[in-house]
Amino acid sequence: MSAAPDVLVVGGGVVGSAVAWWLAREGVSVTLLERGELAAGASGAAAGMLAPIGEDAGRGGPLLHAGLRALAGMDALCEELRERSGIDPEWRRSGILRVARDDAEAARLQAQASARPELGLELGWLDGAALRAEEPLVALGVRGALLSPREGHVRSPLLARAFARAAASLGARVETGVAVRALVRDAGGVVRGARTAAGDLPAGLVVLCAGVWTGALAGAAGAGEASDRALPIEPVRGQILSLDAPLPTLRSIVWGGSTYLVPKGDGTIVVGATEERVGFDCRVTAAGLRGLLDAAPRLVPALAGCTFRGAWAGLRPSAPDHLPLVGAWPGTIGLFVAAGHHRNGVLLASVTGEIVAGLVLGKDVPPCARDFAPARFGPTGSAA
Amino acid sequence: MSAAPDVLVVGGGVVGSAVAWWLAREGVSVTLLERGELAAGASGAAAGMLAPIGEDAGRGGPLLHAGLRALAGMDALCEELRERSGIDPEWRRSGILRVARDDAEAARLQAQASARPELGLELGWLDGAALRAEEPLVALGVRGALLSPREGHVRSPLLARAFARAAASLGARVETGVAVRALVRDAGGVVRGARTAAGDLPAGLVVLCAGVWTGALAGAAGAGEASDRALPIEPVRGQILSLDAPLPTLRSIVWGGSTYLVPKGDGTIVVGATEERVGFDCRVTAAGLRGLLDAAPRLVPALAGCTFRGAWAGLRPSAPDHLPLVGAWPGTIGLFVAAGHHRNGVLLASVTGEIVAGLVLGKDVPPCARDFAPARFGPTGSAA
Repeated sequence: MSAAPDVLVVGGGVVGSAVAWWLAREGVSVTLLERGELAAGASGAAAGMLAPIGEDAGRGGPLLHAGLRALAGMDALCEELRERSGIDPEWRRSGILRVARDDAEAARLQAQASARPELGLELGWLDGAALRAEEPLVALGVRGALLSPREGHVRSPLLARAFARAAASLGARVETGVAVRALVRDAGGVVRGARTAAGDLPAGLVVLCAGVWTGALAGAAGAGEASDRALPIEPVRGQILSLDAPLPTLRSIVWGGSTYLVPKGDGTIVVGATEERVGFDCRVTAAGLRGLLDAAPRLVPALAGCTFRGAWAGLRPSAPDHLPLVGAWPGTIGLFVAAGHHRNGVLLASVTGEIVAGLVLGKDVPPCARDFAPARFGPTGSAA
Repeated sequence: MSAAPDVLVVGGGVVGSAVAWWLAREGVSVTLLERGELAAGASGAAAGMLAPIGEDAGRGGPLLHAGLRALAGMDALCEELRERSGIDPEWRRSGILRVARDDAEAARLQAQASARPELGLELGWLDGAALRAEEPLVALGVRGALLSPREGHVRSPLLARAFARAAASLGARVETGVAVRALVRDAGGVVRGARTAAGDLPAGLVVLCAGVWTGALAGAAGAGEASDRALPIEPVRGQILSLDAPLPTLRSIVWGGSTYLVPKGDGTIVVGATEERVGFDCRVTAAGLRGLLDAAPRLVPALAGCTFRGAWAGLRPSAPDHLPLVGAWPGTIGLFVAAGHHRNGVLLASVTGEIVAGLVLGKDVPPCARDFAPARFGPTGSAA
């Protein structure tokens, strides 16, 4: 590897790729290192929903505001990425129907439909008849649905690759198949680069975007490092499967309980997802698959007869408050993290890149940057 | 293709391969034609159980007798195939535990345990405690099980390939990727060979072993042919899946209701199978998979946490009486069929080959040959 980059981004998922792109876009010399191939982890497994409302609508907290910022920017972002990278992330503002399977859910969702009109979410309540006019395949027992027309989905591996290729088109160096074994620190504990099988790679700043493996990387160094216990990110497994879509297929995402059905442009429907705290176990299990196959036809009965295409799993990197950690790693100079996006990595990738670029260059950052600051978990590392 | 063979066998599943082997073993000049690769159809999809008792134990009918003949010959057969072909079909006399999930099933299975001792099946009844001593993983609610120690399983694609290679070692010609488009008949309607893309291949006798596609082949010719409606073979879809086995795994096959669990030598457990009359639709569906994933952990709860490896489906060729059709096709000289083995193709492949070879050479045939004769459905074809 040639001249030292200003910033070394570790991890070629959708977050790392977005960070590299935002930095490259700001003229920063950046290298993106990915140990395997791009989007091989949680990004590649994700259903690609951009759905901030479901996560946080009632509370109106930072996730909702960051998510709405992301949603507002998607059309322009995907246009720019497509032009820069030649890859279409297949962003579709399909809308989401959050369906009510009983009266309690109906009451709760109906209340949401009229809440917070100032946010411009354009939410609406569909009763049973209106819902079935909109999506005839939805089960007869469903009472109605909260229609959220501004949400949608992308093909998340394509989004990650589009970010990385767009970054490369702006001069970023993208290296796949290069594993970072440890951080390189000086005697004072300042991070000065990263160690790979090909040798040490010096950098002015290292940004760890390694999802559930971020903690291990932050801790993998000599004396004075932050221990991996210090990074409060835990894996939450999501199992997911795909079916050939019925004909005609769904137009909107249909979401009921913990199950969502995402109609993709390739003629499949992605059915997600389990949420399981089973450590770094990334297997598809009989029980996980059974749960999805049980739930999906309860929402859309026609799915029972659809062809099974495949199943996979990913590990969501999740902090205790379910908000990402984006920014300087407290107590360690030269180290940033951008990880812990839980179910919202695809949604918040671009906003995350914007925050990192803003912090690195001393520019304005979105308001959610404060909520996402790793410092909220206290200074955990310390110089030797 | 060179000199005309005496016999042309159409279909490289386990039945066609066994027929080719038995004929080659008797010194007959034989060519085996397979349109794709060997064992690409139902043979490749099968769980490979050799389980005649469950099919017919109470009635003691022809399937039981043919199946016991097959079971009795498996050790010697597999030894000979291994030596001839270099392929081990992985025959394991694992035994089968047919479990009772309620008192009615227990009474029925317990009665079977003491029925027909003269058959030498060595059946035994295990109560709940004895069953769990034998297989600790079986669900606590299971009342007991009928233990059938002489049954077991093979890897059915390996058995098909072993038959075909053993046949080749004895001089048979095995051609894969050669599709038969039609039968070649003379002016009198006598079958004289088969038509392929590479030209007509003359033969003294054609044996159709094409599973669910046998009827279409029998009918695909000019005037005077048997119509494909005349061959009473219908597809019955079986969906099946595999899981990584728990540790320690099962020793025996566990069978309850319509679900069986076959512990394979590669560390997986095969879970089968649906029985669906859906025509030539060979898809794995959400409903099919869900049913298997629902049933398997009810028999062995530890399976819920096991890794999902994959799912597939096959089309069993089934006659109305669930017995195979083996022998001369009535009304058409020069044409045999060996098809319609329903759930018992792997079990009865070798016996089928023995019957065909015996009929071709005018030798003694096993007693079940009479029960399997296609003529039981009446003369359906007619010379022009």
